[in-house]
Amino acid sequence: MPDYQVFVLDNVTLQSGFTLRSARLVYKTYGSLNARKDNVIVFPTFFGSQHEANEPMILPGMALDPGKYFILVPNLFGNGLSSAPSNTPPPYDQARFPPVSYYDNIHCQYRLLTERFGIERIALVCGFSMGAQQSFHWGALFPDMVERIAPWCGSAKTSRHNFVFLEGVKAALTADQAWQDGWYQAQPTKGIRAMSRVYAGWGPSQAFYREKIYLQLGFSSLEDYLVQAWEDRFLKLDANDILAMIGTWQQGDTSDNPLYHGDIHQALGAIKAKAIIMPSQTDQYFPSADSEIEVRQMPNAELRIIPSKWGHLAGGPGRNPADTQFIDKNLKELLAS
Amino acid sequence: MPDYQVFVLDNVTLQSGFTLRSARLVYKTYGSLNARKDNVIVFPTFFGSQHEANEPMILPGMALDPGKYFILVPNLFGNGLSSAPSNTPPPYDQARFPPVSYYDNIHCQYRLLTERFGIERIALVCGFSMGAQQSFHWGALFPDMVERIAPWCGSAKTSRHNFVFLEGVKAALTADQAWQDGWYQAQPTKGIRAMSRVYAGWGPSQAFYREKIYLQLGFSSLEDYLVQAWEDRFLKLDANDILAMIGTWQQGDTSDNPLYHGDIHQALGAIKAKAIIMPSQTDQYFPSADSEIEVRQMPNAELRIIPSKWGHLAGGPGRNPADTQFIDKNLKELLAS
Repeated sequence: MPDYQVFVLDNVTLQSGFTLRSARLVYKTYGSLNARKDNVIVFPTFFGSQHEANEPMILPGMALDPGKYFILVPNLFGNGLSSAPSNTPPPYDQARFPPVSYYDNIHCQYRLLTERFGIERIALVCGFSMGAQQSFHWGALFPDMVERIAPWCGSAKTSRHNFVFLEGVKAALTADQAWQDGWYQAQPTKGIRAMSRVYAGWGPSQAFYREKIYLQLGFSSLEDYLVQAWEDRFLKLDANDILAMIGTWQQGDTSDNPLYHGDIHQALGAIKAKAIIMPSQTDQYFPSADSEIEVRQMPNAELRIIPSKWGHLAGGPGRNPADTQFIDKNLKELLAS
Repeated sequence: MPDYQVFVLDNVTLQSGFTLRSARLVYKTYGSLNARKDNVIVFPTFFGSQHEANEPMILPGMALDPGKYFILVPNLFGNGLSSAPSNTPPPYDQARFPPVSYYDNIHCQYRLLTERFGIERIALVCGFSMGAQQSFHWGALFPDMVERIAPWCGSAKTSRHNFVFLEGVKAALTADQAWQDGWYQAQPTKGIRAMSRVYAGWGPSQAFYREKIYLQLGFSSLEDYLVQAWEDRFLKLDANDILAMIGTWQQGDTSDNPLYHGDIHQALGAIKAKAIIMPSQTDQYFPSADSEIEVRQMPNAELRIIPSKWGHLAGGPGRNPADTQFIDKNLKELLAS
């Protein structure tokens, strides 16, 4: 029996003009919605993950305590649970899955919250990486609904450098002839393994590798780490799903919508939510320098840098206990304020 | 008429145990060797380049002034001028080109200097990136011969993170079926284009992309920069040559030889040359933190960080005038000392 719920969206007109037909938004909830419906936390998923990857931060005693809050984890389009190339029926399957933006994701999540649950206020939207980018969008698209946001290891707008890093990931995956322009019958595993090696250079930091932290994690060698932690992780995904999520990420821009017309300064300025922004000190593609620039444009935000050698991975829920604790402590403080 | 000379090495027994047959070392000289043979500068080439790429730093009035010095630029094995998969006759051609180490390169360069020119002292060995790595090797392998070294944007030992970055580059290239395990009849251009996109994320820095410096350089867009500056650059190379050079780079370790038996502390401590080490402030794969660690182990070395937003590219000779000038100024100071 699945551990999740499905919200049927039917046909969704996307920002791109395409229609996502038979669309479904998969989500899981933790805890109970109280009578006043004021204990809602939205915790969207990150790249290449599904809701269960967030669960190490949803525990009694932690900030996201299901005994206190009603925590809703919506799955990102493209992740294989919510609508994705791998689960969408023809004719919009595989290479024809349309481009889906963060704007589209957030609007569908909004429908879920309002239509299914009658929620009008959100105590907190928080998340890691692509989940962080969704948090910024929630804050800017629904400024009167969202009381707090806590994005970590993510930006309001995908930087050009981050875009280029993802070009490399995509190019490695699609160099495999077995990919067949997205019309494969079997997964292009050589390409997925190649993109895993590309990704492995970006995910952790220089210091992570310098200090051989992968050995402390139980991997027997650097090669074992690359195969087991990276190739195995991405081999579990569908190639077109990976590309769909990367497409959303690359075009990520909180201001690219009818509200802000591409004016990121205006979009960030419109976020009323009280915010704590947590970049990792050693993140190579969501560097803290980018977060500093964005925080300066937000009226009610504070920058708190995760003092980690884990690079981007610092933000992976439960990945590194010290970093998870840092994030959790700040979430508690934000929720108490 | 070629602008270079060929030093025929015949059969070279490599550190790997393989024999590089019909080996040739291609070099170019600038200026004249004086009577005392004490005006020698060795300036080895970097990844994916040939001697002419060094020429923007070999000019009258610059530190490497051909009016004063005899400047010798040896081409790296694998670069297509010196022995490489693309120019080695069967049976050691293409996928059978043997692994060549920096130790092998430096020993062959030593033979060139001593056997052809009777050189016993070197005023300076300097270089960028893989040229920097060769400079460290020269200093450690011939400590009584080398008076000064100036490696910039390079390390004495390839870090694990740097190794992983190169795993991504290799994986992207070799994901192309046209590569055929190295036995291609035509270049695997899709794979070369893929590795170019991977590389493009690493070469410059986050700040380079954030400030859109590529537009100031005359590229019309980010995409134009990726195609013209990166794909076009690597499409000029042979795929197996690229892999041969990466192999040398990945195994780079100044101490991995019969003198130092893998003890990098001992190897760095043995360098008698006066040294100025110049990492770029924003280099993503030869980060200044690595150089700091290495400099601390060298008895006669000083760290001077290139204050640049160009990432690794800061060190490319003539690439960015301000950074080239910074390096040149330090070379002058080192040569005058």
